[in-house]
Amino acid sequence: MSKVITSRNEDYSQWYNDLVIKGELADYSAVRGCMVIKPYGFALWENMRDAMDRMFKDTGHVNAYFPLLIPKSLFEAEEKNAEGFAKECAVVTHYRLKGDPSRKGKLMVDPEAKLEEELIIRPTSEAIIWNTYKSWIQSYRDLPILINQWANVVRWEMRTRLFLRTAEFLWQEGHTAHASARDAVEETGKMLNVYADFVEGWMALPVIKGIKTESERFAGAVDTYCIEALMQDGKALQAGTSHFLGQNFAKAFDVKFSDKDNKLDYVWATSWGTSTRLIGALIMAHSDDQGLILPPRIAPLQAVIVPIYKGEEQKKLIDAKVQTLLLELKGLSVRVKYDDNDNNRPGWKFAEYELKGVPIRIAMGLRDLENNTVEIARRDTREKTSIPMEGLTGTIVQLLTTIQQAMYDKALAYRAQHITKVDDWNEFEKMLDEKGGFFSAHWDGTAQTEEAIKDKTKATIRCIPLDAVPEEGKCILTGKPSRQRVLFARAY
Amino acid sequence: MSKVITSRNEDYSQWYNDLVIKGELADYSAVRGCMVIKPYGFALWENMRDAMDRMFKDTGHVNAYFPLLIPKSLFEAEEKNAEGFAKECAVVTHYRLKGDPSRKGKLMVDPEAKLEEELIIRPTSEAIIWNTYKSWIQSYRDLPILINQWANVVRWEMRTRLFLRTAEFLWQEGHTAHASARDAVEETGKMLNVYADFVEGWMALPVIKGIKTESERFAGAVDTYCIEALMQDGKALQAGTSHFLGQNFAKAFDVKFSDKDNKLDYVWATSWGTSTRLIGALIMAHSDDQGLILPPRIAPLQAVIVPIYKGEEQKKLIDAKVQTLLLELKGLSVRVKYDDNDNNRPGWKFAEYELKGVPIRIAMGLRDLENNTVEIARRDTREKTSIPMEGLTGTIVQLLTTIQQAMYDKALAYRAQHITKVDDWNEFEKMLDEKGGFFSAHWDGTAQTEEAIKDKTKATIRCIPLDAVPEEGKCILTGKPSRQRVLFARAY
Repeated sequence: MSKVITSRNEDYSQWYNDLVIKGELADYSAVRGCMVIKPYGFALWENMRDAMDRMFKDTGHVNAYFPLLIPKSLFEAEEKNAEGFAKECAVVTHYRLKGDPSRKGKLMVDPEAKLEEELIIRPTSEAIIWNTYKSWIQSYRDLPILINQWANVVRWEMRTRLFLRTAEFLWQEGHTAHASARDAVEETGKMLNVYADFVEGWMALPVIKGIKTESERFAGAVDTYCIEALMQDGKALQAGTSHFLGQNFAKAFDVKFSDKDNKLDYVWATSWGTSTRLIGALIMAHSDDQGLILPPRIAPLQAVIVPIYKGEEQKKLIDAKVQTLLLELKGLSVRVKYDDNDNNRPGWKFAEYELKGVPIRIAMGLRDLENNTVEIARRDTREKTSIPMEGLTGTIVQLLTTIQQAMYDKALAYRAQHITKVDDWNEFEKMLDEKGGFFSAHWDGTAQTEEAIKDKTKATIRCIPLDAVPEEGKCILTGKPSRQRVLFARAY
Repeated sequence: MSKVITSRNEDYSQWYNDLVIKGELADYSAVRGCMVIKPYGFALWENMRDAMDRMFKDTGHVNAYFPLLIPKSLFEAEEKNAEGFAKECAVVTHYRLKGDPSRKGKLMVDPEAKLEEELIIRPTSEAIIWNTYKSWIQSYRDLPILINQWANVVRWEMRTRLFLRTAEFLWQEGHTAHASARDAVEETGKMLNVYADFVEGWMALPVIKGIKTESERFAGAVDTYCIEALMQDGKALQAGTSHFLGQNFAKAFDVKFSDKDNKLDYVWATSWGTSTRLIGALIMAHSDDQGLILPPRIAPLQAVIVPIYKGEEQKKLIDAKVQTLLLELKGLSVRVKYDDNDNNRPGWKFAEYELKGVPIRIAMGLRDLENNTVEIARRDTREKTSIPMEGLTGTIVQLLTTIQQAMYDKALAYRAQHITKVDDWNEFEKMLDEKGGFFSAHWDGTAQTEEAIKDKTKATIRCIPLDAVPEEGKCILTGKPSRQRVLFARAY
């Protein structure tokens, strides 16, 4: 029996959950707000992680690993950062269980094993890392430090959604240390570009690079840069952030270096991160009412071959053809599977691989054998074509590239239609409801106005785009003078 | 200034710490019992992880990710497992901090944010995984499930040592589900072989495969298989374990499947794990008083090129030769670095790369340029040879293979000298102190005798080797009848 997917029009939010669960990317767990990433979802994450990891290494970064648990006294050292995360902290207070005398065979927390100082499960690792850098940095010769960490973090969110907002999530966090503000700012920009290149080049998802307003800034940062992507329901999603931390953490943890002239100064810092949340963005940007549509470069399976036959004899003839094809495709590093499981009918398999977003489906039946062809179905356009066996592997490799580009182009066209210049408040409110997307509007630059707009519309300033052109105008809410447009949107 | 390493004879334990810290593999952290894995150590772990990951995938396994936090009621469901880990559990009791009214800008645990049910940080994931498998398994068609997870775990150890025993460590844990005991036992054996192949083939460390006695068994297992390696101080180290869990977890979490005849039965389970502890084994098995000796297959750097020159002109001549060599070596996937940092003298660099265990050092000076040679130094034997530039890349690739094999052979010869058959109690005690290593001795099969031997000598039964030959004999302590020898050793 095929799995039923709620359509986007019917219930967008349920559609999303159906894709995650029925597409076997993730599952709910017994732990409040935490999910299980299933093998298919994890294979997708591995492809994303490996691609990013190569990009980090190609830009001179190395990986390391820092402790999960942070003593409260370290955590609270950088006060703005601590304040920003305080409400979401999971706290370890005890280190032992013991038999519960009132419930045979069961356990209770041992009150004798209370920690002298509570430990916070990292919601982000600036504190523990900068406390460590203190002992690694003495001189300008020790700089820069360009370290990345792949890790799990916990932020106790009250309202969670699979991939988009979970109490525990997987991410990478870069933490770099520099001898000058200029070097640190340059690093912040470099990593923002790496993120944009990854999301656009691998996830086929166009992004807008920008800088956050003060109220949307990372707690403890001087400046937060971001990439913002657009989902099919017209809401924006922050896909990655890169922070210039100034000397805030160096001051909090007293990390100084002596420069070439032997003068002491605090070290300059950046941090930057992306997470499994990107998978949520991927799903919402590309998928349709039939299921996931995954970009070939990161799809766990790029092609699936389904045989259509009656009886063992036909099956054997198809098997023989497919074995050669499989070898050739694997030789070209195509991630391909031959699904000849005879528990399921071809129609069921077609629906299943559509749901799972496999970019190319190859069907081979008796008539194909006779004609020396196969039927190829593109997941993104759902077009079917009969293709000669001769030169098939080249066709498939080429088609994967074509699909990757077509997905990007489609998402880019959608976004282009959904960036709206708006100068009138009533129109702004109306269009937010009716059209969605990004709204390029003037803003008077104050946090109060930003807050007032958010209260009235639920739209926030996603960013001040890096390519914003100076332009005199009037704030869309207050009419006060403004010198550039910013991007508003409702957001995940 | 070169770093000073304590010699093994002087203080073995300090020698080990010196190698870890001064070799820049890891560092102590501000968190009790937790370490920082530094970039050089993490690159080593990445190579080990990637090699194992490929072996897991080649044997049909897939990766997934399960929650870090386990509700206490789930954790305690399999009582033996829970009891085994209860004393080492880090417990999360609160989910929020708030401003501390008595310390401006500082935080305190918010007493209002107490969890209804405490959460345990996973010391191992059987409980959360089997609770999840319950909803994934209905029929024999859903089996086997062959899942692995790369994750961090926390076990609150009282006495910790870098890599060997830390409160938090990184590991992989396989958790498989099967339709029959036979399938599960077969999987247990298959993964034990994968571990042995990895440790022997990649870490150049021979292991003995065996089965644990009841008292050394994993809490919740029916049988624990292990691989045991020998360190240079004559102590054994358990390098990996593979557990046949029977139906224990299926019963605890009520996980049943219907077989082909539609009969319901509990599912059969295995779990298997290796951890960053392997790095401790690697260090202690191979290194010497000059520092680490890393096997080429997993060494982060396989070769380093050090220029020896006076003045810029000589430097330029060397640079030109080296650039070609670097390109060729990288083209052959050799992990090579050219260290032309002129802050450090060649002698300092030689000592530094010896300390870091880089398998091959290539020095190039003016005389080499004239003779069209380089000087190659092997880290394992410390032999130096002058080698013609012509065919150099081939020589280096070949030498990496030679070193890998030589390291294995040396460790194997050492172990062969340190497996001692012993039938007399006094000799056993004497040899344990004077020679160390494994002792192949008769044991009467009782936990009491095993415990008594441990109390008297600190030696434990490392395993009953899988290749043990039936042999009538008398227990080395009690004189009671025994039908096979087991392996005793003092152990990490």
